[in-house]
Amino acid sequence: MRVLITGVDGYLGWSLAQYLTVQGHDVAGADGFLRRRWVEEIGSWSATPIPPMEARLHAFARRYGKPLPFWDGNLRDYAHVEQMVQMFEPDAIVHFGECPSAPYSMIDVHHATFVQVNNVTTTLNLIFAIQAINPSIHLVKLGTMGEYGTPNLDIPEGFFDVEYRGRRDRLPFPRQAGSWYHWSKVHGSNNLMLACKIWGMRVTDIMQGVVFGLHTPETGGDDGLLSRFDFDPYFGTVINRYCAQAVIGHPLTPYGTGRQRRGFLPLRDSMQCLLLTLEHPPQAGEYRVLNQFENIYEIQDLASKVQELASTLGLSAEIRNVENPRLESENHYYNPDHQVLFDLGYRPSEDIDGDICSMLETLATYRERIEARRHILIPDQRWDGQRRRANFLSGDNDRVEHDRTEDMLQ
Amino acid sequence: MRVLITGVDGYLGWSLAQYLTVQGHDVAGADGFLRRRWVEEIGSWSATPIPPMEARLHAFARRYGKPLPFWDGNLRDYAHVEQMVQMFEPDAIVHFGECPSAPYSMIDVHHATFVQVNNVTTTLNLIFAIQAINPSIHLVKLGTMGEYGTPNLDIPEGFFDVEYRGRRDRLPFPRQAGSWYHWSKVHGSNNLMLACKIWGMRVTDIMQGVVFGLHTPETGGDDGLLSRFDFDPYFGTVINRYCAQAVIGHPLTPYGTGRQRRGFLPLRDSMQCLLLTLEHPPQAGEYRVLNQFENIYEIQDLASKVQELASTLGLSAEIRNVENPRLESENHYYNPDHQVLFDLGYRPSEDIDGDICSMLETLATYRERIEARRHILIPDQRWDGQRRRANFLSGDNDRVEHDRTEDMLQ
Repeated sequence: MRVLITGVDGYLGWSLAQYLTVQGHDVAGADGFLRRRWVEEIGSWSATPIPPMEARLHAFARRYGKPLPFWDGNLRDYAHVEQMVQMFEPDAIVHFGECPSAPYSMIDVHHATFVQVNNVTTTLNLIFAIQAINPSIHLVKLGTMGEYGTPNLDIPEGFFDVEYRGRRDRLPFPRQAGSWYHWSKVHGSNNLMLACKIWGMRVTDIMQGVVFGLHTPETGGDDGLLSRFDFDPYFGTVINRYCAQAVIGHPLTPYGTGRQRRGFLPLRDSMQCLLLTLEHPPQAGEYRVLNQFENIYEIQDLASKVQELASTLGLSAEIRNVENPRLESENHYYNPDHQVLFDLGYRPSEDIDGDICSMLETLATYRERIEARRHILIPDQRWDGQRRRANFLSGDNDRVEHDRTEDMLQ
Repeated sequence: MRVLITGVDGYLGWSLAQYLTVQGHDVAGADGFLRRRWVEEIGSWSATPIPPMEARLHAFARRYGKPLPFWDGNLRDYAHVEQMVQMFEPDAIVHFGECPSAPYSMIDVHHATFVQVNNVTTTLNLIFAIQAINPSIHLVKLGTMGEYGTPNLDIPEGFFDVEYRGRRDRLPFPRQAGSWYHWSKVHGSNNLMLACKIWGMRVTDIMQGVVFGLHTPETGGDDGLLSRFDFDPYFGTVINRYCAQAVIGHPLTPYGTGRQRRGFLPLRDSMQCLLLTLEHPPQAGEYRVLNQFENIYEIQDLASKVQELASTLGLSAEIRNVENPRLESENHYYNPDHQVLFDLGYRPSEDIDGDICSMLETLATYRERIEARRHILIPDQRWDGQRRRANFLSGDNDRVEHDRTEDMLQ
């Protein structure tokens, strides 16, 4: 299968390029390096050092014995997108080329608009390029479980049968996203639903849970091939942030009460699920929605788990909840379906403890890079638009005033 | 009340500026004249001649004895939006400053992207300007009944109580829009819902039916103050198109079987409803959705009605259905609520025959301007992206080949 990955320089993209190649597929990639710039803009960097693309491509070819065709360009430029699709003739396109950060979208009007315009435009460009060149190309788009919000109902996979005032219909499940970023993903989902309906396109829209982890079996042992690993409050996901904090003895910082429940999956399970999705494309005209996660956890319990596992490795980390910079329910019902992937053959790795330990061990080798960004580990972008560092909720806030974190913030 | 109208140069905007002024409110307007350019781009013009803005403002001041403060600028420019809101200090903003055409959004990737980016960005800019300057400003946003599509259920006003697998919640009613344009309005609605939730804004989102008519009691008799009146297949609404066709003896052209049902309201009822909305703002934090229409009609029946009324005025027009350029259900259940406006005091004018006759009479005086655009009265933008003139569905298509319409198309 020929697979074009947009956003191939990113956390999931770089991992997937290798995983699919090992599975015998022909992979090409595209990236405009915006993620590198965004992370730099908010003052952070990847815990794993990320070489320039040329070096990455070189390491890739050396390891896998074939090159990764690569296009450097901006997906908001339609001519660029059409040209890539024309030249590579993919059977499937995996679209990771969007801005993935809720806090980044909440910075101000310019960031909010940028994230929505960027994410809507890149997806529209892919839709139109596929329609123009080969409507049978399977488009796999990365959405997020956050599109649904936290309704007081079970969350089906995209659609539900509803009865209302004595009549019945099958309808899209209502979305209740919680940030400009999350809504940008809903906007994209809605556009894809229309493309399937009017143009007979085949789309898989993945409502992915929170991914964690660093290694995949394909990338272990060769640092030149490691994916990026963000640990800042803008681009780092929660378990990854906890692990980076633990490695430098920084408190683990759940937001608010920490009773928020979310779906999670290890990076390697994400790879497995994406492969299954690609190997089992939907019918022409089908807009298929998958809820992609392994298990549901409370973020407070995950902090305890990381703390516990870290201590077995001799790392001591306290848990200190911080003010929740987001406006979200902290006490809510959460019961999303995730059956479709199991029907396709998904076998969950079921070893979160192992994944966390492996992550802690690898991150320990990059301790200095994390330490150098200690001053940005507390969230500072609030949902009310203010940029103001979150206070610790319990314990001695005075102590914070004098710790190194605070000193570096000034 | 101080009301800022964005898109004040448009069909609804120019009418509302006068209507609210007569009602004693202080009105200001903003426009970047994009609508004039779009209509020019697709080769049409307004049946009513539209003078340059300077002349319109002059006529306005002469008639109402006070000037209409006006800002010329692009609403995609945040600094411009913020400055206007800062300077005028409105109690309410009525946002008409979006691209309103489904066929225009279906032309190609550039038009699709433009419509979505323009509409999303203008609304985000207003949201952020209100949040920055005065969060208590009431934002009235023009949506469309088309956001809902045609589900096999009653359509509530924005939200519904749903039971699913034994649990209950009040959720946004699922949207199933049918064009890039219609989805752009849903994207805006979703963004507004978030703004109310996280910033306590007060928003009325109007799911408006198809507006028709030319006169309002405020604009009759003074041509310098008439609103624009589009009759082309891109920017003209269906009853207005029928009337323009009838005036020049062109066939009335329902799309497909013509059995599509939609909600309609006269221009003067739209004005009345908007006034009621403004005079009864929602609470802080309330995202209020109104379904704004007077009655539901099948578009085929409306063609018959226009034909009949035209004949009483000595205008003879046949009805010739054309291929439906859209992909939409032509046989569907349609039963939307529209109670909230009645609760606010809406008194429907209930005189569609009178409105149509008045429209036909006025349009007759602009017969030559419509005649000059006879060649664009058949839709040519199909939902599959092709630009190809729709054929007549019944009768003698050969005849079309030789009529003047066809000649001018070549």
